Amino acid sequence: MDLFQKLTKGASTPLAELSHAAHGIAAYPRLTGPIGRRMAWQGKEMLVWSINNYLGLADHPEVRAADAEFADRYGLATPMGARMMSGETDELEALESELAAYARKPAALFFNFGYQGMFSLIDALVDRHDWIVYDGESHACIIDGVRLHRGPKKAFPHNDIGRLESILARIERERHPDDAVLVISEGVFGMSGAQGRLRDIVALKERYDFRLLVDDAHGFGVLGPDGGGTGEEQGVQDGIDLYFGTFAKAGASIGAFVAGDADVLWRLRYTMRSQIFAKGLPWPIVAGNRVRLRLMRTRPELRQKCFAVSDALKKALIAADLNIGPSAAPVTPVFFDSSGLDLIKGVEYLRVLREKYGVFCSGVIYPVVPAGVAQLRLIPTAAHEVEDVEPTVQALLGAAEEVIGRTFEPASVTS
Amino acid sequence: MDLFQKLTKGASTPLAELSHAAHGIAAYPRLTGPIGRRMAWQGKEMLVWSINNYLGLADHPEVRAADAEFADRYGLATPMGARMMSGETDELEALESELAAYARKPAALFFNFGYQGMFSLIDALVDRHDWIVYDGESHACIIDGVRLHRGPKKAFPHNDIGRLESILARIERERHPDDAVLVISEGVFGMSGAQGRLRDIVALKERYDFRLLVDDAHGFGVLGPDGGGTGEEQGVQDGIDLYFGTFAKAGASIGAFVAGDADVLWRLRYTMRSQIFAKGLPWPIVAGNRVRLRLMRTRPELRQKCFAVSDALKKALIAADLNIGPSAAPVTPVFFDSSGLDLIKGVEYLRVLREKYGVFCSGVIYPVVPAGVAQLRLIPTAAHEVEDVEPTVQALLGAAEEVIGRTFEPASVTS
Repeated sequence: MDLFQKLTKGASTPLAELSHAAHGIAAYPRLTGPIGRRMAWQGKEMLVWSINNYLGLADHPEVRAADAEFADRYGLATPMGARMMSGETDELEALESELAAYARKPAALFFNFGYQGMFSLIDALVDRHDWIVYDGESHACIIDGVRLHRGPKKAFPHNDIGRLESILARIERERHPDDAVLVISEGVFGMSGAQGRLRDIVALKERYDFRLLVDDAHGFGVLGPDGGGTGEEQGVQDGIDLYFGTFAKAGASIGAFVAGDADVLWRLRYTMRSQIFAKGLPWPIVAGNRVRLRLMRTRPELRQKCFAVSDALKKALIAADLNIGPSAAPVTPVFFDSSGLDLIKGVEYLRVLREKYGVFCSGVIYPVVPAGVAQLRLIPTAAHEVEDVEPTVQALLGAAEEVIGRTFEPASVTS
Repeated sequence: MDLFQKLTKGASTPLAELSHAAHGIAAYPRLTGPIGRRMAWQGKEMLVWSINNYLGLADHPEVRAADAEFADRYGLATPMGARMMSGETDELEALESELAAYARKPAALFFNFGYQGMFSLIDALVDRHDWIVYDGESHACIIDGVRLHRGPKKAFPHNDIGRLESILARIERERHPDDAVLVISEGVFGMSGAQGRLRDIVALKERYDFRLLVDDAHGFGVLGPDGGGTGEEQGVQDGIDLYFGTFAKAGASIGAFVAGDADVLWRLRYTMRSQIFAKGLPWPIVAGNRVRLRLMRTRPELRQKCFAVSDALKKALIAADLNIGPSAAPVTPVFFDSSGLDLIKGVEYLRVLREKYGVFCSGVIYPVVPAGVAQLRLIPTAAHEVEDVEPTVQALLGAAEEVIGRTFEPASVTS
C-alpha cells in the first residue's frame, strides 16, 4: 500500500480525527503578545493558565535584559557544531558546575534539548542485557528512550510501589549477575501534578540492587526548601542516582541536564548520541540559563508567590466540588468524567471559556491522558495574583453550565 | 551488577577509552571569540575549518542584527510550551510557507530540533507492519528513528543502488498488500561529502512502490541552482516525497523542517511525539530563521564564494596526493589509513597542526567513521578566502611529517 495513502486515509489516531475540529482552539491555539499571565487569543485579552512559567522568569526584567544582552554579544548562531566537535565553552562548564551544586551532586552534564537529552540518556545508560523498570505514566521522552532499549523492560502501574517491588524481586531472581537494573520515575508528573513516590522507591534500594533516574522537569526550581527539586522536597536527593532537570519549565528557557556521579557523566559525555551528533545550544541560551539559575537559587519569594497562588487555586477548586486529583505541585488538573462531554463539546467548552470569560486554559484528552477521563490543566505561577483565582473558578463553572447544561461530573482519579 | 560500576569499569567503547587522551583537543576543544573563520584555541589564533557555516551566515551582519533585535523584542523564553499547547505563532506559519516555497513542496512543518525532529518523523510515518529501507551510512538521528521501529527494516550498503533494488524486489514479493515502504537516504553525507544517489533512487519508483525521505542537512541552502538542495541539484526534487532540512548548517541556527504533501504533514502535526510533547523553539530563533532563509534565497554570491573556496581546497588536496574520497559538496574529508597512525598520535597530530601551524580542523575516528580509516574533515565556507587554502594544505602535510615522520598513507575510500 502507498505510505501516504495509509497515513491520510487509513486508520487514524483520535487526535488526528479530531484535529480539524480542535485546531486553533484545543490544539495549536495562537497566543499573542508578550509572554505572561495576560496574552491575547483571537484578539481578546485572556487570563492565561497554560504556561509552565512557575517562577515568572519568562518575562522577568533580569531575564529579558540578559537575553537581549547575550544575543547582541554572541548572536544566535554560536556555536556551529556539537560540543564534542566545536561547541565547548567555559560558559557551559560553569553552568554545569552551578547545576551540580544546586542539585547537590558531584557533577552535571548539560543537554541541547530535554526530549532528546532524556531519550539518549536512557539509551546510553543500558546495554541490551540490562533491565529498565519505569513508571507507566512517564513522559513521552522517557517512553521513547525505553522504546530504544532492546533488552528487558517493564512498566509498573503509576506510583504503585508494591508492584514495583514485586517486579524488582522477580528481576533479582531471574537476572544474570552481570546485568544491571535502571528504575525511572518522575519528580512531578506533568499532567496530574502528582509527585513520584521517590522516598518509597529509594527505600527499596536497601533490598534491591538498582540505580534510580528521576525526571524532575516540573519540580526543578519549584519544590524543596531552596527549589532544588522533588528529591529535596522528599528528603531523598542522595538516593536519586541520576537527577534530570530541564530549563523548559521554571527555567523559562530550553536545554536540560542530568546531575550525578562524575565518572558516569564523563562516560555519558562520550556516548550520548543526541549530544555527540547534534549541535550545542546557542550561547545566549546557555548564558541566559545561568542567569535564570541564579534567580531560582536566590529569589525564594518567587516560589512563595507561586505556591500562594497554587494553594488558593486548589482550595477554591475543591470548595467548588471539583476533583483536582493527587496534585502535590503547582500543576493543577481538574478531572472530569468525559462520558458527560463529547470531544466536540470539549472544544466548544474551551472556546466559550475564552470568548465569554476571558480565561485561557488547556484541555487534554485521550491519548495524552487515559480514555474515559478528560481534564483541564491549570498552571499557577508567580506571575499570577491570588485575586485571579476566584473569577477563574467561576468561569470554569459558568462555561460548564452553558455548554453541557450542568457543572462537571467529577471523575474518580487518585494517585 | 551495579549499573554505575558496569558503566565506568566494565567494557567500554573506543571513544570512552580514548576520551581522556583526546579531551580538549580532538574532542571538546574550546574555540573562543566571535564565530567565524578565525577563532582562538588555547589562546592562539586559528584558521578554523571545523564549522558548517557554509554561507557565512553565522556572523553575517544582517543575521547578527536580526538576532539582537528579536531577542530584545521577545526575550528567549517565549513560547513556554509545545506548539500544540500554547506555542503556535504567525511567525512559525510564515516560516513554514517560505520553507515550502523554497523546497518546492505544497507544505512544510517546522521542528524544534533536527535530531528529535528526524527520529519522531520516522516514528510517526510508519506502523509496525511497514518496511524501512535506509542507507547504511545514515546520520545517527535517522538510525535512532529506525531503531524505534518495531517492524521490518533493512539497511542497504552506502549508495549501493543495486542492493537497494534487490531489497525492494524482495519486499515487493514478501509484503502484505496493506504494508507500506519508506526509503531513507541523505542529500549530502556529512562525514564524506558524498551525495546520496537520489536520481537513481527516484528512478526505482517506476518499478517499486515506496516513499522517499531525504535528509538534506548539508545540502539545504548550499546545492542546486538557487540553494534549494540536493534534490534540485540532481533534478529530482519532485521525486523526493519528504524533504528534510535543518537550519543547523548553512542556516546558522537551530531547528529543522520537513516539506511535502500537505495532508501527510497535517497528520504529522498531530502525531510527532517530540513536537507534541516538547517545547517549541524560542521565537527569536524562529524569526531569525526567516531572515536566514531570505539570505539563502537572495544572495547567490554567498554560495558562489563557498564553492570557490571549496573547489580550490579540493584541487589543492588532490594535487598534494591526498584522498578526498567521493566528496561532491563543500564537506571535504581527507581519508588516510589509520594503521599508520595510532590514536594517541592522531590527537598529537591535531595539536601540532594547531600549535605550530595555526590550523584548526576536526579529526574523526572509529566509531564515527568505520574502523581502519581515519579522516580529517574540512568545511570550506563563504567566510574563508581562496588564499587560505594553500597554507592549510602545507600545514596538513607539515604536521604529518613532524608527527608521523612522513606524509599520510591515503586510504582507498570510494563512494
